[in-house]
Amino acid sequence: MEQFLAEAKEASRVFNTISGAEKNRILREMANALRESSANLIKANAIDIADGEKNNLSSALMDRLLLDEKRIDAMAVAIEEIAALKEPVGRVLEGWVTEDGLKIEKVSIPIGVIGIIYESRPNVTSDTAALCFKSSNVCVLKGGKEAQNSNEAIAKILQTILEKNNLPKSLISLIPDSSREGVAKLIKMDKYVDLIIPRGGAGLIKYVSDNATVSVVKHDKGQCHTYIDKDAKIDDAIKIAINAKVQRPGVCNAMETLLVDSAIAKETLPLLKAEFDKAHTELKGCKETQAIIDVANATDEDYDTEYLANILNIKVVNGVEGAVEHIVRFSSGHSEAIITQNVTTAEMFLNAIDAAAVYLNASTRFTDGGAFGFGAEVGISTNKLHARGPMGIEGLTTYKFKIYGSGQIR
Amino acid sequence: MEQFLAEAKEASRVFNTISGAEKNRILREMANALRESSANLIKANAIDIADGEKNNLSSALMDRLLLDEKRIDAMAVAIEEIAALKEPVGRVLEGWVTEDGLKIEKVSIPIGVIGIIYESRPNVTSDTAALCFKSSNVCVLKGGKEAQNSNEAIAKILQTILEKNNLPKSLISLIPDSSREGVAKLIKMDKYVDLIIPRGGAGLIKYVSDNATVSVVKHDKGQCHTYIDKDAKIDDAIKIAINAKVQRPGVCNAMETLLVDSAIAKETLPLLKAEFDKAHTELKGCKETQAIIDVANATDEDYDTEYLANILNIKVVNGVEGAVEHIVRFSSGHSEAIITQNVTTAEMFLNAIDAAAVYLNASTRFTDGGAFGFGAEVGISTNKLHARGPMGIEGLTTYKFKIYGSGQIR
Repeated sequence: MEQFLAEAKEASRVFNTISGAEKNRILREMANALRESSANLIKANAIDIADGEKNNLSSALMDRLLLDEKRIDAMAVAIEEIAALKEPVGRVLEGWVTEDGLKIEKVSIPIGVIGIIYESRPNVTSDTAALCFKSSNVCVLKGGKEAQNSNEAIAKILQTILEKNNLPKSLISLIPDSSREGVAKLIKMDKYVDLIIPRGGAGLIKYVSDNATVSVVKHDKGQCHTYIDKDAKIDDAIKIAINAKVQRPGVCNAMETLLVDSAIAKETLPLLKAEFDKAHTELKGCKETQAIIDVANATDEDYDTEYLANILNIKVVNGVEGAVEHIVRFSSGHSEAIITQNVTTAEMFLNAIDAAAVYLNASTRFTDGGAFGFGAEVGISTNKLHARGPMGIEGLTTYKFKIYGSGQIR
Repeated sequence: MEQFLAEAKEASRVFNTISGAEKNRILREMANALRESSANLIKANAIDIADGEKNNLSSALMDRLLLDEKRIDAMAVAIEEIAALKEPVGRVLEGWVTEDGLKIEKVSIPIGVIGIIYESRPNVTSDTAALCFKSSNVCVLKGGKEAQNSNEAIAKILQTILEKNNLPKSLISLIPDSSREGVAKLIKMDKYVDLIIPRGGAGLIKYVSDNATVSVVKHDKGQCHTYIDKDAKIDDAIKIAINAKVQRPGVCNAMETLLVDSAIAKETLPLLKAEFDKAHTELKGCKETQAIIDVANATDEDYDTEYLANILNIKVVNGVEGAVEHIVRFSSGHSEAIITQNVTTAEMFLNAIDAAAVYLNASTRFTDGGAFGFGAEVGISTNKLHARGPMGIEGLTTYKFKIYGSGQIR
């Protein structure tokens, strides 16, 4: 593993010699190669699918695993879209002249070698490889065991294009040892690896955070809340609450707990229940909620659970202070919303809550790179530093200061 | 320790209720309190000084430890300068409207609770506390054992002002257990601590990096190089090399190794030696250097040593490629310089070298917050992510997205 990563680090220097136009041409070649190899890819994927059936993977997982002509074309299109992004490296982020006459430029540069740990969907392999290549980073990919054959086939196609262009294939590679021990080694190789991005279950994230000596940008859970204030437009509030929970319950920006101001609970909860019943949402509630509508009991454990399913906790709180109190205790710092027409209450909430995205009068479902207008997305970071929230391709860059002098000394 | 940090985290929320004007007034009160308590401070410092003499601290360390009226006034002035800085929290870093009509603001916010581990100089205690307070962060300070009495006296004065203003004194506090075990606990408390900044020797930095689960911004060593290219103005080159080594050898942005292009080594090395001899610099050199001037032998271990003293390695290299090769191997990513008049060579070097600051025709000694024009400085980060190089007060902030909607759903 060490030898492999040392080569990856060494290979990263080749990016100094490739222009943006060349990178984009190579990315488009990769997209075409994926399309042309779709028969091979589908064959490799069939092995994973057969294994998945043998191992009784859930139908949701099986669906995420499957590759067909249409999905392979979508992977190619995603690479072409990444090729079309503005060059992320070499942007002058700031520039000034110092009192000593030094001209300083703060310039975006690649991070270096990035290890990415992810699960099931094979398209993540090509998306991530393309994002890293576009931003002049070497990527070391560790996909899920269940997609191993598909991921290997995809990586091989991309590597063939690298070699055709006289580039080292280690610019895009799968981790050579994908066992737990392999991952344990990878996350401690700070001499060669500059960043680890874990995307996956809570166990994986915690393991990586606790054990890595390399910097980590987490993609952790979204324990998202929506608070309906007494000064809310109730129609908007119901529409937003339903959307935040029901439109796609299995994603990290979906709402898990709805907080309702005690001043309006009596009128509002029955209206909410009627709508959630239509959407077949399983409701749980606090004692005050249960006194008004007929729902199961919600425990502290429920308030701490990311259901990723059509299940919702409801809690009656004492105004915006009560809402903030609950959110501070249970938030995972992802996305939190307030529904109100009162500007003072709104700003109080938006300022008090420490989350990547804080919303006024909108659904938490908007927290993603596409909705934010970032184009391609690396993921949604729950880190507090480096990249927070929707992480565009700039999240794969850092910076250095270039200082132009004319003989200055101190 | 956990109880203490939980209180610190809880206390951080009070910053939501203090205006910038109040923070600045309180900072100025702290500055005055330091001046008014100078007799007490000097008394506490005298205990550290006496202990230092007993423990045979070096004269350099003793000098750094000493507090007198003048130095206490300088500490007060530093706090007043920090009070005069622009408010770092609540700045709108970017803002736009999405296709869905959501107004998004990317806003600077405090990081939260910051643990800072540092050594000897007591003024770091007041500087750091003031920088954290100004940026609405709670600080947990772990100073050097040798300055314990001075640091406690300073913290107590600052805490008195907090309490006078009805603020929790845990906003500025010394770590309750300053033993190795205390530090070991602190750096794993990611539930309450958002960032650890270690400033000190290589052992400390490595220990913290290897063991922390909290994010770390390192202030590690400066293994800085200057490369004199064959197209350099030789007068400038000599002047810059002398300055980079001699002006203040004990700091991290001082040069440790001078690289000289083989094409000009024969003429240039004797000129350099004459000037370095005048400055009483101890010179070591590679074989090629030793064939031209009379210096001791430089080993790979020397090339890897941050002398922090008036000692210099000299190495003859094969043009800019040779310089880059050597720097890639030995650089600590702090500050690296090239002296040349050739634009192609210059850009090749500035792009190829991955360091916080890369210089053309200037001394590496300029890498600091003051020289960069940042005002007060937290330190010089050798991290690749979050803050890199001179770290101004913005380095103590992160951001969140505030999203203003009018009923949007997906």
